[in-house]
Amino acid sequence: VGAARLLRGVVAIVSPRRLTVIVNTADDEEVHGLHVSPDLDTTVYNLAGVAPRDRGWGIAGDGERLLAALSRFGQPTWFRIGDQDFATHLFRTAELRAGRRLHEVTARIARAFGVRSDVFPMSNDRVRTVVRTPAGDLSFQRYFVQRRARDRVVGIAYRGLDRARPAPGVLAALRRADLVLLPPSNPFTSILPILGVRGVRRALRRRRAPVVAVSPVAAGRAVRGPLGGMLRSRGLAVSPSSLARIYPGLLDGIVIDRSDRRERGPLERLGLAVAVTDIRMNSPARSRAVAEVALGLARDLRP
Amino acid sequence: VGAARLLRGVVAIVSPRRLTVIVNTADDEEVHGLHVSPDLDTTVYNLAGVAPRDRGWGIAGDGERLLAALSRFGQPTWFRIGDQDFATHLFRTAELRAGRRLHEVTARIARAFGVRSDVFPMSNDRVRTVVRTPAGDLSFQRYFVQRRARDRVVGIAYRGLDRARPAPGVLAALRRADLVLLPPSNPFTSILPILGVRGVRRALRRRRAPVVAVSPVAAGRAVRGPLGGMLRSRGLAVSPSSLARIYPGLLDGIVIDRSDRRERGPLERLGLAVAVTDIRMNSPARSRAVAEVALGLARDLRP
Repeated sequence: VGAARLLRGVVAIVSPRRLTVIVNTADDEEVHGLHVSPDLDTTVYNLAGVAPRDRGWGIAGDGERLLAALSRFGQPTWFRIGDQDFATHLFRTAELRAGRRLHEVTARIARAFGVRSDVFPMSNDRVRTVVRTPAGDLSFQRYFVQRRARDRVVGIAYRGLDRARPAPGVLAALRRADLVLLPPSNPFTSILPILGVRGVRRALRRRRAPVVAVSPVAAGRAVRGPLGGMLRSRGLAVSPSSLARIYPGLLDGIVIDRSDRRERGPLERLGLAVAVTDIRMNSPARSRAVAEVALGLARDLRP
Repeated sequence: VGAARLLRGVVAIVSPRRLTVIVNTADDEEVHGLHVSPDLDTTVYNLAGVAPRDRGWGIAGDGERLLAALSRFGQPTWFRIGDQDFATHLFRTAELRAGRRLHEVTARIARAFGVRSDVFPMSNDRVRTVVRTPAGDLSFQRYFVQRRARDRVVGIAYRGLDRARPAPGVLAALRRADLVLLPPSNPFTSILPILGVRGVRRALRRRRAPVVAVSPVAAGRAVRGPLGGMLRSRGLAVSPSSLARIYPGLLDGIVIDRSDRRERGPLERLGLAVAVTDIRMNSPARSRAVAEVALGLARDLRP
């Protein structure tokens, strides 16, 4: 959701053709026999302007006829998929089964929705986030959607990540980038998997472009989702300063919330440039404002 | 369509629990990566009372959101599938991929729709009708739906039929039957594949139950569909008498249309019992009336 909202702000400012989005696929899931890539689809739907305003998934105005019909067969329907959204999964699944690779199928889906930015899956290889809880190991979607992120998180593993190669286009995009934005997504479930793909950290270390993060926490709490508990269980403060420890040596700048302005000093002492604003993006205007601050900070940092 | 209409008439008279339907699967098709079984689904939807009155496929009042969304990806949409209907195909495909067999999945689908009759696919093995035309070999759905049965039919082959074993339940149902009805379906595309499954003809020959067909032709024309041309291309008259040649030694009785009453004599000379009625089932009342005539004829023939 945080990434989607920042994206909407960014494309309101930057020409879509100049934007490349590298997307987490570690929370992909097999649902009703279909390959569902929630983060890829949310990215495409937001860039295409067909995402709903009031929730972080699916297509605005979609129906749920198919899902209701599936429940007739006793199929679990906790993972809600709209009728039009099903078409995306059906197309992707059929194409993957026919031997196409995820980055090719993603490009075709993005093009079909009129998206002019490059949208790359982090990898064509299978990576799966496993959330370890007292109730057992859960896939990200089971943990997050089915069980509403209520389990205590004992640990997080990324199955397959050690063998995952970057999808074609990913490293080149990082090397060519003028700037890199890390959106206010959950680092553990959405960003660290991308950084763990072979060659991604190295491409970022060698880059000349500044890396700027938008903080996913404000006033001692996660802006949304289960990040707070995940930080605490690792002995980290629910504070933007923790990002510097989660992404060691990676960040050049960070956008933090007004409520956290006392963090400016400590962050600057760590060598980070800091911008302070209201980071809650609960309207298109706020998305655009936060994107402007982040892009401005990055621009100032350019060599 | 003819089979569906007769079925509706039969279940208005006979307790559903006493009815077993053995269904052609030779026109099954892979569509958008899903296993679609048009005849099985039409049977279930009709027995469940959710089939539309005005067309021979799908679920009444269904939408086509998914299909419209698929066309965005340049996917062919000549094979129309409603949103609820997609759920059936999605469920069947996922179950088959998980190792379940078609007859098991069919039973679950029928049960989910509240159907109390037994619905059996003719076989769990893959059989495919190939329609040979001057434009090349076509799958049945391509010939019938996409190209609207406009190609001249040079021949029909049933790929895989020589190796197809009957699905569990099929032979036992034929052996136990009090009577066997052949609906007014196209013999070449809908009934001969079933008769060609290993053991089916033998089970029918050994049966003690009468076999009664409802004619698919009236007044020198097929009641619907491309049967007329198929008969002529084989040098057969478009007349109920041709059924006796298509199903040699199989029929005990036949229901023919009033317009064909002059065929009664020739058919009786072939040893068939004949009932004459208006065979067009263009209303629930007419479906029931034709079913009553067919069941009555069969009853009279019982040993």
